[in-house]
Amino acid sequence: MAGEFDLIARHFDWPAPAGTLGVGDDCALLPVASGHRLAITTDLLVEGCHFFSGVDPQALGHKALAVNVSDLAAMGARPLGCLLGLSLPGVDDDWLAGFARGFRALADGVGCPLIGGDTTRSPQGIVISVTAMGEVAVDAELRRSGARPGDDIWVTGTLGAPHVALELLQGRHPSHAALLESLQAMLEWPQPPVAFGTALAGVAHAAIDISDGLLQDLGHVLKASGCAAEIEYSRLPVHERLGVLDAAVVQRAVLNGGDVYQLCFTAAPLAGPVIEALAARHGIRATRVGRVLPGQGVRVSGCPLPLGGDGYAGFDHFG
Amino acid sequence: MAGEFDLIARHFDWPAPAGTLGVGDDCALLPVASGHRLAITTDLLVEGCHFFSGVDPQALGHKALAVNVSDLAAMGARPLGCLLGLSLPGVDDDWLAGFARGFRALADGVGCPLIGGDTTRSPQGIVISVTAMGEVAVDAELRRSGARPGDDIWVTGTLGAPHVALELLQGRHPSHAALLESLQAMLEWPQPPVAFGTALAGVAHAAIDISDGLLQDLGHVLKASGCAAEIEYSRLPVHERLGVLDAAVVQRAVLNGGDVYQLCFTAAPLAGPVIEALAARHGIRATRVGRVLPGQGVRVSGCPLPLGGDGYAGFDHFG
Repeated sequence: MAGEFDLIARHFDWPAPAGTLGVGDDCALLPVASGHRLAITTDLLVEGCHFFSGVDPQALGHKALAVNVSDLAAMGARPLGCLLGLSLPGVDDDWLAGFARGFRALADGVGCPLIGGDTTRSPQGIVISVTAMGEVAVDAELRRSGARPGDDIWVTGTLGAPHVALELLQGRHPSHAALLESLQAMLEWPQPPVAFGTALAGVAHAAIDISDGLLQDLGHVLKASGCAAEIEYSRLPVHERLGVLDAAVVQRAVLNGGDVYQLCFTAAPLAGPVIEALAARHGIRATRVGRVLPGQGVRVSGCPLPLGGDGYAGFDHFG
Repeated sequence: MAGEFDLIARHFDWPAPAGTLGVGDDCALLPVASGHRLAITTDLLVEGCHFFSGVDPQALGHKALAVNVSDLAAMGARPLGCLLGLSLPGVDDDWLAGFARGFRALADGVGCPLIGGDTTRSPQGIVISVTAMGEVAVDAELRRSGARPGDDIWVTGTLGAPHVALELLQGRHPSHAALLESLQAMLEWPQPPVAFGTALAGVAHAAIDISDGLLQDLGHVLKASGCAAEIEYSRLPVHERLGVLDAAVVQRAVLNGGDVYQLCFTAAPLAGPVIEALAARHGIRATRVGRVLPGQGVRVSGCPLPLGGDGYAGFDHFG
């Protein structure tokens, strides 16, 4: 059986970029450009909570990094590197090779090389801890508190598909096996718009990534900014395959469904043409869905069904 | 029952230093001084593997951060801030308050404020992930690869006590209950010499923190530096209370015992007076224990007992 150090060398010893010290010392070292600050974020993924035990390890490696670079994108930060903590019941080389492949493909794709980490044996299930680092010019970052009344509210990508895929995997809507097949990748292979998020630094006013549902995540922006918002339901970019489902199921998935890892951001109306040009350059779908207002709370106009008392609820791990 | 966001606000929402953005956005933001690089490290602590289930939460909070700032010290980096990931079976406010108290006391003591993190529910035991960040002047960092033949080898603090405490907790040497009482703090409240480590940047040549045992950790330095070493057993700073134990038990604890979180570093003999002055200023015990040589491997001269075939072995999570 391989030792801890062999395990790292075999699967995770990737070359570090120039000026960076990667895996193999007490710390990794990373240069941060003058006039910039380090942006840093960490997320835990726990077996049986964030992912099913039998999930494709390659998809899991991808997603473990995706949820973190999504936070960099939501700050307008350019990725610099990441750390990986793996707590595993044992060493399964096939599993690790798949995990490393998925992780690395995304790391290479968004320019966020693995530069350090920790591996340990867990008496229980798998726990994955990823920390992602980026840099952003001072005062250009996209804070949650930057929204202003009059701003347009934008959403990238589409909404609803990951939530419906999760419900299908949990055995709800059982007559839609074909639908699951077409939506599962939206849950397991999220594609946060990282380069587009970086390009929004200094252009947008505020941003957040949609991990717990549009209403809850937009709510965090509004609360931090001291503003309200109106969303036009008919403008929301509903995933095209959801049309076969009941309107109530779709509405809930679109407004409250998590695991999206797309951006919700606000910007002055005058920035609209710049944002559309950036979206076109990066191949990103960006949709104007509403407006920031004075006051507090979110109103959704034109909903097919009345919003319940849980209309603002997203996902809370300890709720 | 409290929600995730309340939990963070109640126990972990501490003020961030000027120029730093702390808890509450997609990323934390951290300035890194011009001419410096970010040093970053992450460690996982898993219930049933790195700590016993009933351990004092205050000690656990201390240790979770201590093992990470120990890595910053071993790089010669000055702490800037840290991230905490907590995966918990549920919310126990008393436990969290104790954990936060121990974590914060050390964070305040070494100047490493908590600036972000993630909390999640674990269906299994407790998993703690800490990421610590520091800064170190370019080319002043203490890499493992910096040792040179002729260097003195130094060790801070004392050796052996945490390993013996662990063996006592596991029920070995059962006639020494009083000894456990006097050694347990060495296992549960490690005190890495953080400010002293920072002061060694640009002074020492190479450093590592002793987490897996002196021989194994020094071995990493020698391997990375392409050197050998001779250690004089009689010079090693054995913890004063270990004298009541068999020589074989002591020798093993001193050479192979982990969980020490003190530094092993190498420096030119000419730097000796500077190092002694720095140690005195920081209230650190620093002991010259041997010499770096050309070649490879470690020789220990003057051992009470012959070194076994496992003389180089430390602790390997997947061994």
